[in-house]
Amino acid sequence: MPRLFHRVKRPAAQSPGTLDFTGEKKVERVGLEVVDYGGDHLATHELDSVAECARFAGTDTVTWLNVTGLHDTALIRELGETFGVHPLALEDVVNPHQRPKLDDYGDHLFITCRMPRAGRGSTDMDAEQLAVVLGRGLVITFQERPGDAFDPVRERLRRGRSRLRDGGADYLAYALLDAVVDRYFFVAEAFGEAIEEIEEIVLAGRGDDPLGSLHELRRELVVLRRAVMPLREVVSALVRSESELIAPTTVPFLRDAHDHATQVGDAVDTFRDMLTSLQEVAMANASNRLNDVMRVLTIFASIFVPLTFLAGIYGMNFETMPELAWRWGYPVFWIVTLVVAGIMLGYFRWKRWL
Amino acid sequence: MPRLFHRVKRPAAQSPGTLDFTGEKKVERVGLEVVDYGGDHLATHELDSVAECARFAGTDTVTWLNVTGLHDTALIRELGETFGVHPLALEDVVNPHQRPKLDDYGDHLFITCRMPRAGRGSTDMDAEQLAVVLGRGLVITFQERPGDAFDPVRERLRRGRSRLRDGGADYLAYALLDAVVDRYFFVAEAFGEAIEEIEEIVLAGRGDDPLGSLHELRRELVVLRRAVMPLREVVSALVRSESELIAPTTVPFLRDAHDHATQVGDAVDTFRDMLTSLQEVAMANASNRLNDVMRVLTIFASIFVPLTFLAGIYGMNFETMPELAWRWGYPVFWIVTLVVAGIMLGYFRWKRWL
Amino acid sequence: MPRLFHRVKRPAAQSPGTLDFTGEKKVERVGLEVVDYGGDHLATHELDSVAECARFAGTDTVTWLNVTGLHDTALIRELGETFGVHPLALEDVVNPHQRPKLDDYGDHLFITCRMPRAGRGSTDMDAEQLAVVLGRGLVITFQERPGDAFDPVRERLRRGRSRLRDGGADYLAYALLDAVVDRYFFVAEAFGEAIEEIEEIVLAGRGDDPLGSLHELRRELVVLRRAVMPLREVVSALVRSESELIAPTTVPFLRDAHDHATQVGDAVDTFRDMLTSLQEVAMANASNRLNDVMRVLTIFASIFVPLTFLAGIYGMNFETMPELAWRWGYPVFWIVTLVVAGIMLGYFRWKRWL
Amino acid sequence: MPRLFHRVKRPAAQSPGTLDFTGEKKVERVGLEVVDYGGDHLATHELDSVAECARFAGTDTVTWLNVTGLHDTALIRELGETFGVHPLALEDVVNPHQRPKLDDYGDHLFITCRMPRAGRGSTDMDAEQLAVVLGRGLVITFQERPGDAFDPVRERLRRGRSRLRDGGADYLAYALLDAVVDRYFFVAEAFGEAIEEIEEIVLAGRGDDPLGSLHELRRELVVLRRAVMPLREVVSALVRSESELIAPTTVPFLRDAHDHATQVGDAVDTFRDMLTSLQEVAMANASNRLNDVMRVLTIFASIFVPLTFLAGIYGMNFETMPELAWRWGYPVFWIVTLVVAGIMLGYFRWKRWL
Amino acid sequence: MPRLFHRVKRPAAQSPGTLDFTGEKKVERVGLEVVDYGGDHLATHELDSVAECARFAGTDTVTWLNVTGLHDTALIRELGETFGVHPLALEDVVNPHQRPKLDDYGDHLFITCRMPRAGRGSTDMDAEQLAVVLGRGLVITFQERPGDAFDPVRERLRRGRSRLRDGGADYLAYALLDAVVDRYFFVAEAFGEAIEEIEEIVLAGRGDDPLGSLHELRRELVVLRRAVMPLREVVSALVRSESELIAPTTVPFLRDAHDHATQVGDAVDTFRDMLTSLQEVAMANASNRLNDVMRVLTIFASIFVPLTFLAGIYGMNFETMPELAWRWGYPVFWIVTLVVAGIMLGYFRWKRWL
Repeated sequence: MPRLFHRVKRPAAQSPGTLDFTGEKKVERVGLEVVDYGGDHLATHELDSVAECARFAGTDTVTWLNVTGLHDTALIRELGETFGVHPLALEDVVNPHQRPKLDDYGDHLFITCRMPRAGRGSTDMDAEQLAVVLGRGLVITFQERPGDAFDPVRERLRRGRSRLRDGGADYLAYALLDAVVDRYFFVAEAFGEAIEEIEEIVLAGRGDDPLGSLHELRRELVVLRRAVMPLREVVSALVRSESELIAPTTVPFLRDAHDHATQVGDAVDTFRDMLTSLQEVAMANASNRLNDVMRVLTIFASIFVPLTFLAGIYGMNFETMPELAWRWGYPVFWIVTLVVAGIMLGYFRWKRWL
Repeated sequence: MPRLFHRVKRPAAQSPGTLDFTGEKKVERVGLEVVDYGGDHLATHELDSVAECARFAGTDTVTWLNVTGLHDTALIRELGETFGVHPLALEDVVNPHQRPKLDDYGDHLFITCRMPRAGRGSTDMDAEQLAVVLGRGLVITFQERPGDAFDPVRERLRRGRSRLRDGGADYLAYALLDAVVDRYFFVAEAFGEAIEEIEEIVLAGRGDDPLGSLHELRRELVVLRRAVMPLREVVSALVRSESELIAPTTVPFLRDAHDHATQVGDAVDTFRDMLTSLQEVAMANASNRLNDVMRVLTIFASIFVPLTFLAGIYGMNFETMPELAWRWGYPVFWIVTLVVAGIMLGYFRWKRWL
Repeated sequence: MPRLFHRVKRPAAQSPGTLDFTGEKKVERVGLEVVDYGGDHLATHELDSVAECARFAGTDTVTWLNVTGLHDTALIRELGETFGVHPLALEDVVNPHQRPKLDDYGDHLFITCRMPRAGRGSTDMDAEQLAVVLGRGLVITFQERPGDAFDPVRERLRRGRSRLRDGGADYLAYALLDAVVDRYFFVAEAFGEAIEEIEEIVLAGRGDDPLGSLHELRRELVVLRRAVMPLREVVSALVRSESELIAPTTVPFLRDAHDHATQVGDAVDTFRDMLTSLQEVAMANASNRLNDVMRVLTIFASIFVPLTFLAGIYGMNFETMPELAWRWGYPVFWIVTLVVAGIMLGYFRWKRWL
Repeated sequence: MPRLFHRVKRPAAQSPGTLDFTGEKKVERVGLEVVDYGGDHLATHELDSVAECARFAGTDTVTWLNVTGLHDTALIRELGETFGVHPLALEDVVNPHQRPKLDDYGDHLFITCRMPRAGRGSTDMDAEQLAVVLGRGLVITFQERPGDAFDPVRERLRRGRSRLRDGGADYLAYALLDAVVDRYFFVAEAFGEAIEEIEEIVLAGRGDDPLGSLHELRRELVVLRRAVMPLREVVSALVRSESELIAPTTVPFLRDAHDHATQVGDAVDTFRDMLTSLQEVAMANASNRLNDVMRVLTIFASIFVPLTFLAGIYGMNFETMPELAWRWGYPVFWIVTLVVAGIMLGYFRWKRWL
Repeated sequence: MPRLFHRVKRPAAQSPGTLDFTGEKKVERVGLEVVDYGGDHLATHELDSVAECARFAGTDTVTWLNVTGLHDTALIRELGETFGVHPLALEDVVNPHQRPKLDDYGDHLFITCRMPRAGRGSTDMDAEQLAVVLGRGLVITFQERPGDAFDPVRERLRRGRSRLRDGGADYLAYALLDAVVDRYFFVAEAFGEAIEEIEEIVLAGRGDDPLGSLHELRRELVVLRRAVMPLREVVSALVRSESELIAPTTVPFLRDAHDHATQVGDAVDTFRDMLTSLQEVAMANASNRLNDVMRVLTIFASIFVPLTFLAGIYGMNFETMPELAWRWGYPVFWIVTLVVAGIMLGYFRWKRWL
């Protein structure tokens, strides 16, 4: 199960803006992938040093610099200096458990959010932090390891002229966020299915311990909720942003992304509600099932109680017990016994206890 | 039971505005129904192609174009281009599980909401998406299959001059939304009755497993809630809208529709409350009923416990047991037995355990 | 118990403003009562037709027209036309299950709320809808049947010059709303007493099934809540209203009425809280009471378990059982039996199980 | 326990501003205590009639008129006329169960709140209503009976020149409210201790029925909450008030009082949370304790079940039962019996059922 | 466990601004530590009297005066007069259980918050109050005893020129608050781990009484929540503050601190959620475990019930019982017994009761 809390703060002993990577090193070498495009132009490069990146700064084209791997803080500092990224933003880049947020540093916007790694079919977020810097004609994305949600965007860029190719850096940033929201839909879908599956089990009264599974789903839901609710705020802040980095024509698209994030948020609330209700039904079911066993067994024992008493009677050693001497005493005893048992069974059935 | 989550988002690999129908194909051929009216004029047409629709654009009359069936995305794109509908709106049209919303694209408003298909008497929403484009003198409605909530509106149009015939496109859009809200009243009514029915069962302590039914009602309520709450917001946004497409004289009518949506929303909250309370009463009832059985059986067994002990005593083989030799020993044993049983019964009754 | 949901909407097949009475007909003939006053002048009339009412329109005096019975929609339409009431308001008049609300139609305000019919001592709202039209020098009230909350107001009007006699139509409307709020105090008082009564029963652990009663109180509370919360909003909207129909001198009185409605609302929240807490205590009590019975019976049976075993021992037929031949064997058996029983009883008491 | 609801409204049959005392008469004679001060001047008077009070109106000094006893409505009306108090304010004075509130009547502010009578150590609010009129150079306080929270303020006035002596009427009003808030700290302190006490009992698993006590604390907490939450709003409204009766220099002190009221409010929320959690722990404890008893008894009986069966075996009368004739049959029976019992005990211990 | 409520208010008998220490005296002698710095200049002094401090007032450098120990109210009053601190602020300094808050006194800001003393690994807040006065070129901090969260800040000051050394007093105040927030991360981390630990125990169904531990964690969480939620408000108020004491360049850093406080706040909400869910699972587990024991024991007893009855039958003394005389009667009895027992065991297994 995912951790409940992650330290995201630099120690107080460090100045703000100190770059100290607090995540796990998940990749050997930092990858620097540059996609530079505009209209008919599109060029993709795998670079080795920040110096090589520098030449893309200040051009007319849109440059997307995708950094994979965050442990090389020297490189990230150099990058920050080259492209004028605020030290606090850089610090957040290398502390990969930030609460999703939007910071406006005037000449660039800084966005962090959680990017689920899982594709379809898993409720496990297995998310990593995505940090996006949106500057003039420039988008820098930072992620912990290769394998991101952006292949569809790369594909669309490659495919030829499109709104994306003709759009600005803000539109690219939107497309990337949209790709992230897409992942949330996968996760929410998987949640919906997992809950429906467990719902079927619970309502049918089957399943040994649905309570444990329900709690685990709830736990994972908390993680999803903690990622998607602030993401919604981030996109909403972008919609309302008055930054000149966001063109008015991009706003409807951001609003669209906001609608989608809201929908995931609504779903999370619904899931939570359903889990609570299922938990109660499951608890009631478990209790009823156990009580049923006890009831049947008690009824069974109750039928033998008077019979055993009767047998005890005729096991007594009184000198004068006329029944003992009767010729048909023993068969009559058996008949009485069976009749008593039959009456009791009938009574219990009539009372609907069986 | 309705699905908990529906994917409504285009895959990230597609550009926004890509039309890719994500619902199920529910009709063979797209129906294009045009109602063109204004004052004394009223004409109804069943058209075959978008080209035929084009001549209704830009006239003085009010044109209602009702599109049934969403799978023919080429047709819908053509329609969008003909009437100048924003690509994002068109995309939402063909993704029929949108969260109800209002988008203002300047020269046209775009509204989506859920339209319950059921008439009176069913708590099952069985809703499909209704998309409404409101332009100048133009209303386009999109739905998945024939059989909608709009027959009353068509009837009112046919009936002769009326506020509707004399009103503008905004009034028509209001009338259509009002017809949708009408359906919600049917659903809410059915819910109210279903809850009252189950309430009677629960309070009378009857019913084998009301918990399952209660959970199912809750589930369906979640679906209703997820449809009606954003619808209320949509209508409220229309009331507060500053779009010039909404005439001031239409606002009181929209406010009226908002009141009605609010009323359904209030009812949903009440239903939820009642379901929770009923769930607790039902669980307590079930537990009490089982406990009652156990109590009665335990009391029954308890009465035989000392009697069996007594019979055991006189089944012992001690050489010197004076009672065994008494002449009236056996009858006295029976009398003692009955007296003990009587006292115990009396005691349990006095204690109100029986 | 009151219904959970009432249809209040005209069918979509009808134009807004269509008057179609949806309540039950509760009175044979519509009553038209006119009170016309101002300073020293006061006149009361029982009229037969709307035409007779017309002469009170546009006078300098304040006219209160009280309409009892809503089924005669022709009459109500005529009335609406005579006094210039908006068709949507008239529609709400004849649909007597509106959510309480305030509509500002410019030259008149339209208010609906629920008016409890019960006097002191009943938690049953048994409310009907009161609709109030406040125009210039004119108040029209609509109710379903005779027997309203307004006798105190009539009495105050008759009693001679007073703030009410000298006040305008807005002050009269305030006085009528105040009389309605008064009724809510009766209901809330009755609720407070009913809850205190059941609280005493629950805390004393008496009462066979307080859960059913608690649920019923909760149900009635929902109805009260649904009436009083929007009423509070209505009065608050009147206080903040910028309509010129409300004189500034009337505002402190409306604020006073708002305080009172708030107080009832606070009480409703408190009641709800108390009912939830009582429900839990009652459930715990019921469970404990049943468990107590089981515990005592189990202890009782447990005492006989070893004794019956002992008796079984000496009922065995081994050839060599020296105890059976002892002279004092049987008395010693009894002594052992009693000592064992005594020790067990003592142990259970010491363990505080008895 | 305190009542759940108090009628605070005049009957609708009375004009607003009608003075009709609805509390209980708690004092024989209305007390009129005047403290008149300013700089070095300080005079205290016990007056007999309103006429005598009149001479303090309109002076340069600050006059505090403290009225004890509210049943003499004639006197209160005279007072109101003398000092120009609004009739609605006077009405609230004599209805001593108002919701705490602040009314701004232009030339005077009117404040009501609940003043706990208890000193340290009691969770029982036993509160009465305090009404404060703040005019120009004038503070009138109304309370139901002698014995208030104001002795510390009187003491500070007497003690010589101080910020209080040099301050205006607004500062005096602040000092009085501050003295009231002080009382709430006593009550909250007592609550904190009562909850910690019961917490210790519950967590130790002791105590016969903590549920009843928990419910009673919850009930008293509701009363405290209903008093302190609106008081906080009242003080907050004073801080934000734009009335010229409040000097800017007094605002920081009011803000301080607001902080204190907020702290009590926070504590109330915490207490509520704790009570809910304790209730659940107590219910689980009670259930576990009972189950423990049942488990131990059932285990005890279970050990005898096979032994009694064994004894039954050798009580049978088959003609050929070789064991009965064995020489060591009886002792072997005992050994078998003890071994079986031992094994079962061991098994139950190993299973941790004992 | 920490106390649920602390008195923080001066008694009403004291004038506001009266300095009366309400905490426990935790240090013998008040410590006065001065750090004076600016650019290359840095001087640290341990002073003995307020008089010595005075020379740092009004210089160009930034002066940080750290006061340790609050019992010497005379000294604190002198300090307040020397540096012009508002009497209400001083009063809050010596009442060390204030709700965290920000007061703007024009020429200085006053901040209080709780500073956790614990380092890593403890969920126990063990917090004391930190009061910060931020003036022009001046920061005064007040704490109860030595051992604070500020060593990292001192270290950074000593380390040479840095943003901190070059920054103003506002930046120093930020650095100090940041160091406090750092401590909250330690506490939240410890909470996360404690909950995960107990979660593992609960989900594995182990642990004797997790309910007690869960309640204690909840209690400690309440204390954390009560400290961190208002702290977040304080930092947010600093961000939005229009005080000229906060330079615009410091705002991004404060926003950063606000993000961090928000993250702790979010975590607290998550923890609470998890604790509630775990409490329910733990209660269900406990109940199931006990029921399991009862079920097994009852099944065990049920198997012997018919066997004991059979043995009773053949212990009867009827004169004519043919089975008793059969040669293989006794062995057949044993076979029947074992077969019956086997069938029952098989049945119970088949029913999945075992």
